[in-house]
Amino acid sequence: MTPYTLTLQGYWRSSASWRVRVALHLKGLDYRYEAVHLVRDGGEHLKDPYLQLNPMGQVPLLRVSGGDLPAGEERLLTQSVAIMDLLDHVAPSPLMFPREPWARARVLQLTEVINSGIQPLQNLSVLRRVGELGGDREAWAAEFIGRGLAALERLCAADASPFLAGDAPTAADACLAPQLYNARRYGLDVGRFPRLRAVEERCAALDAFERARPERQPDAAP
Amino acid sequence: MTPYTLTLQGYWRSSASWRVRVALHLKGLDYRYEAVHLVRDGGEHLKDPYLQLNPMGQVPLLRVSGGDLPAGEERLLTQSVAIMDLLDHVAPSPLMFPREPWARARVLQLTEVINSGIQPLQNLSVLRRVGELGGDREAWAAEFIGRGLAALERLCAADASPFLAGDAPTAADACLAPQLYNARRYGLDVGRFPRLRAVEERCAALDAFERARPERQPDAAP
Repeated sequence: MTPYTLTLQGYWRSSASWRVRVALHLKGLDYRYEAVHLVRDGGEHLKDPYLQLNPMGQVPLLRVSGGDLPAGEERLLTQSVAIMDLLDHVAPSPLMFPREPWARARVLQLTEVINSGIQPLQNLSVLRRVGELGGDREAWAAEFIGRGLAALERLCAADASPFLAGDAPTAADACLAPQLYNARRYGLDVGRFPRLRAVEERCAALDAFERARPERQPDAAP
Repeated sequence: MTPYTLTLQGYWRSSASWRVRVALHLKGLDYRYEAVHLVRDGGEHLKDPYLQLNPMGQVPLLRVSGGDLPAGEERLLTQSVAIMDLLDHVAPSPLMFPREPWARARVLQLTEVINSGIQPLQNLSVLRRVGELGGDREAWAAEFIGRGLAALERLCAADASPFLAGDAPTAADACLAPQLYNARRYGLDVGRFPRLRAVEERCAALDAFERARPERQPDAAP
């Protein structure tokens, strides 16, 4: 089998792109990074050629060839949760989603609290519409992030494991770091979430999380 | 091994509850249904005792005991995607998420387009906030549902398989039926999505999808 060739199309500050970078670095996978600028010129994600690849107009997108794919074939995959799950096939160690069904259910639950319960409500296109309605974008983002993280804190408070769901970082931890970054960006006091903060610190000490940070990406703006 | 005992706490019109009902009926699993009224008295999901069980204040929630769990232990699981994935462990046939990694990636991608890309932007709590900002709730919901379903249509248009991702219904199809129902509720012309409509019709012909419909639930209002 030839090695996999991986290209990540993403944006430095996109939290969903960030999650996938964490997974790639945790697994030690080499990948090419192609920036899709979400702000410049009204957003490269909202026009061709990118929009042809992902009609949802969102990042990230992972392009995969080699490995167990037929020669010459490239697969395109969007949605960070689907990408992280596929990466468990490309490189099973460490797993982003444990194989044991009950541990897996827990990781997927916590991942979705952020992936579907928080992040979509504070992404750029939603905040733009809130602004058009005369709403305060920062207050909107802070409200939904604050509510979601408070629930996540309660869901995890009784669990003393080093990471969100066990002894090793999973997809849930890959989602947590960017969501706390966004929480601060919108002025939330994250001191309200001691369990989440402790996990975040443990993640931050890992090289994979450090390398995935927005500031470390080639398209990072000052 | 004793049989599993399953209790679904949900709401007849909640699209995420509906998805899980589809999965339960496809697998032929018996379950107890407990209604959590999302509208009455400001919403039972936003107060105790339910809020203690799910601090996110969302339905559905699945309670599981028996099976491979230790005797007397009950597990609580939220997030429809995590629940559908766990049900593949409780009763593997038919699978909501295929085991083959590339097929699985495709199903998870399409599922997340709805689960994180569309549904969160049109749920009751978001529409309530839109109304408080003086926005038109119906227009907001129609915009985000229309944009998301148009993208999903394009992602699936080249695939002629009977269901969204293959010859049998999966989690992606379980998400599609409720999302098209909501699209109509908010006045969208779903004729713009011929591929999605064809899949919806094929689903509607299945007993599991018929039994999962909101109108068939004990808490359905006229």
